[in-house]
Amino acid sequence: MNLDLTGTHILSISQFEREHIDLIFNVADRMEPYAQRKRVTRVLEGAILGNMFFEPSTRTRVSFGCAFNLLGGEVRETTGVQNSALAKGESLYDTARVLSGYSDIIAMRHPVAGSVAEFASASRVPVINGGDGANEHPSQALLDLYTIKKELAAKHRAVDGLRIAMIGDLKYGRTVHSLSRLLTLFSDVKVILISPKELQLPEELVEDMRLAGHDVIISDQLEDGIGHVDIAYSTRIQEERFASQEEADLYRGKFRLNQAIYTKYCEPNTVIMHPLPRDSRSTANELDNDLNLNPNLAIFRQADNGIVVRMALFALILDVVDHIDLYSRPVGWYVNRRSN
Amino acid sequence: MNLDLTGTHILSISQFEREHIDLIFNVADRMEPYAQRKRVTRVLEGAILGNMFFEPSTRTRVSFGCAFNLLGGEVRETTGVQNSALAKGESLYDTARVLSGYSDIIAMRHPVAGSVAEFASASRVPVINGGDGANEHPSQALLDLYTIKKELAAKHRAVDGLRIAMIGDLKYGRTVHSLSRLLTLFSDVKVILISPKELQLPEELVEDMRLAGHDVIISDQLEDGIGHVDIAYSTRIQEERFASQEEADLYRGKFRLNQAIYTKYCEPNTVIMHPLPRDSRSTANELDNDLNLNPNLAIFRQADNGIVVRMALFALILDVVDHIDLYSRPVGWYVNRRSN
Amino acid sequence: MNLDLTGTHILSISQFEREHIDLIFNVADRMEPYAQRKRVTRVLEGAILGNMFFEPSTRTRVSFGCAFNLLGGEVRETTGVQNSALAKGESLYDTARVLSGYSDIIAMRHPVAGSVAEFASASRVPVINGGDGANEHPSQALLDLYTIKKELAAKHRAVDGLRIAMIGDLKYGRTVHSLSRLLTLFSDVKVILISPKELQLPEELVEDMRLAGHDVIISDQLEDGIGHVDIAYSTRIQEERFASQEEADLYRGKFRLNQAIYTKYCEPNTVIMHPLPRDSRSTANELDNDLNLNPNLAIFRQADNGIVVRMALFALILDVVDHIDLYSRPVGWYVNRRSN
Repeated sequence: MNLDLTGTHILSISQFEREHIDLIFNVADRMEPYAQRKRVTRVLEGAILGNMFFEPSTRTRVSFGCAFNLLGGEVRETTGVQNSALAKGESLYDTARVLSGYSDIIAMRHPVAGSVAEFASASRVPVINGGDGANEHPSQALLDLYTIKKELAAKHRAVDGLRIAMIGDLKYGRTVHSLSRLLTLFSDVKVILISPKELQLPEELVEDMRLAGHDVIISDQLEDGIGHVDIAYSTRIQEERFASQEEADLYRGKFRLNQAIYTKYCEPNTVIMHPLPRDSRSTANELDNDLNLNPNLAIFRQADNGIVVRMALFALILDVVDHIDLYSRPVGWYVNRRSN
Repeated sequence: MNLDLTGTHILSISQFEREHIDLIFNVADRMEPYAQRKRVTRVLEGAILGNMFFEPSTRTRVSFGCAFNLLGGEVRETTGVQNSALAKGESLYDTARVLSGYSDIIAMRHPVAGSVAEFASASRVPVINGGDGANEHPSQALLDLYTIKKELAAKHRAVDGLRIAMIGDLKYGRTVHSLSRLLTLFSDVKVILISPKELQLPEELVEDMRLAGHDVIISDQLEDGIGHVDIAYSTRIQEERFASQEEADLYRGKFRLNQAIYTKYCEPNTVIMHPLPRDSRSTANELDNDLNLNPNLAIFRQADNGIVVRMALFALILDVVDHIDLYSRPVGWYVNRRSN
Repeated sequence: MNLDLTGTHILSISQFEREHIDLIFNVADRMEPYAQRKRVTRVLEGAILGNMFFEPSTRTRVSFGCAFNLLGGEVRETTGVQNSALAKGESLYDTARVLSGYSDIIAMRHPVAGSVAEFASASRVPVINGGDGANEHPSQALLDLYTIKKELAAKHRAVDGLRIAMIGDLKYGRTVHSLSRLLTLFSDVKVILISPKELQLPEELVEDMRLAGHDVIISDQLEDGIGHVDIAYSTRIQEERFASQEEADLYRGKFRLNQAIYTKYCEPNTVIMHPLPRDSRSTANELDNDLNLNPNLAIFRQADNGIVVRMALFALILDVVDHIDLYSRPVGWYVNRRSN
């Protein structure tokens, strides 16, 4: 196994062994002082990220861009609305060949499954998949697992032996698919899959986890399922994947978690996660706002972790991990993150 | 009164005392060499501005971004068209918590009044209101007043004792509302409000200025009103706030100022201001292009002043005022601003 | 003739003498180590490009932006969808005066012919025309000619004596118009114009080339025309300029070049160019993908050359050519351009 990620594309979590995960997370840990604005590094000063979002996604796009800026690099980007060349009949091959001549590395989102891999095959620089339709979003899966690792570490626990409930739209939710795959790299995991029968996790993913020796339980009852887990991972109904809003509405509003339910059914200190955005409309509201003061609500720590994980990917692919601290200095401006 | 702006949100001009205004303007003066590209400073190298425009505004967005770049920082931004997460039911609280984890400071525009303050309450970093619907746009009000101060200073006058005419859509024009409020911090101001009866300044604002001891005259005649003022502040009809284009068209094209009217009615050296954009279509044309050669037309100096005022806000909030010159050097490239 | 480009607008290729071209190309050659990420320069650190695209064009916009970043400068930009001020009746004069106060130089695209020159006349900083409707796109013409020069130089040939076929929509194709004009600066050129009769090159351009002493042949046969040329310059049908899609479709799919035709009709090592995007849909496909492995397909080298040509323009206009190397250092991150 080649552990070196220098110059590689990041297209799918399937390309990772457990040692890759350990490596990425170790580098992510070392990015914390920069992400928290305690120190500034200029290691990538002069480098350019092509942040090519052919489908809008404010937070993922900004997260990639900020991660690159925090390493000292520049960002040029598209935001998904001016796809003129593709509309004029240009192939992804051509687009990739041209745009990859402009930057040192590319982060790319595209609505079509497989398109980022096709783009990468023609690209002259490394490409990170920032989401290709219903297919993959590897940096999201990594930040989810990194969050699980850190939340458990605070309790002197490891990912091996994890007990996790995944809740909601497990059929269309790309993040639970990717996370399920990543968990097969670990041992002795108990997974409780809570969803409407029609929105269960694809059978293949269930089988893979069982083949890895994990204990997988399928349920359609929230209260029973969340009683004995370390992590309750909630998701929203992926409305845009349903044939109609009416069909989606059949499932929105099921499996709502709020503070009262949490207090009644969960073990103390059960960690709550969600890939965001959470749907806060009264018809959905899968994670109630009354959980916002619960210190075990990890959803914003999860979003923050996206920065250090993406910094780690950039640093590993561009082979600057050992030089980051060398080009660093203390921050000279006001920093006082509010503690909420 | 706490004069220190370090770490504070800038949400409303109501939060300022006169001493704050003096402080901001003094710092703005010190930004001139950088805004005019005589010197470069890198004091915010490594810092990131989240320039979050959930409503399009090219000039305000670019002005905030350039001001931050001129201090050496980076800018990540949204331009108002890909508001996907909010469309999926995400609360402003969640959006704020996530996006404020990505940057050191945020400038934000949003179409809904009050939304920027709601965002700021959840943000972990300082937020500057870049316009929230019909509510506030404090940096615009500051740059207007800064322009008045500078234009008067060139004539050895102060803002105290100012005589100003405000002309046009005083009902919906956010900038005249904010400027009226700011003027209550000064003494002995004469204000002539020239508008159609239906578009008069809200009564509350008139009252506040009278309570401050100002002489406020309400008129619907342009020629009489502009005869004895230091500043003629013209505004366009805010078409987008009317029920129909037809209703707006009733008022467009009234109160046109051109060079002939200026020469006939105004005192010499009366300064002409406008928050821009001015509506140059023949059906409106509130400030004629034949004024472009009049040296008292201050509308572009006004726009330029936006840069130094926004630089001052960034520098004060991030507490780097005393280090700006320290991290500076002469400009090494061609700079020869055409004098027009 | 004034060879110095410091502070000048770049609006039309008509403003150039042959000595300007030589100068720009010599500077472009010196940009290669930076474009290929062998070295980093920070000569424009602190400078700001206003990348004002009032019409979408991902690749041209990103190319200008990356070129400026590669010289160490910052980029603030618009992407063509939020043209609110112009929609509110603002004149280009006002827009130019305001936006040119924010940056050191402007690259601008606009759908209306002549608009960039109008903008430039009011701008306080130099403006580069990034395409104004059907009128001009001078940096594209320069990169085309630069590509021709480099491809011929590899064969120890000069542009004087060039034999070139221009193929496709010669009526609406802005790039062939500009290239034709540039070729009048050189001597002894043979030009074969291959198009449907209805889409021939405008007569005026043909006349100008003949007045320059060039041998111009007009044809509607691909196979005959490409037999004895150094460069086959293919273009797509500019569908968006036709009255209807049906009318455009009459011409799409004519003059297809593929490897079989190339092998049968072209001299060995005939260089293939295209301004991109090429239309790869089966109904058009003017340059088949089976040419992608042909080393004489220069279309991606052509796109890459856009970076160094635009860097050269920025460096000349801002007068930093002699300082670029001074502010340079080796690249510190992974660079290994795939050779495809």
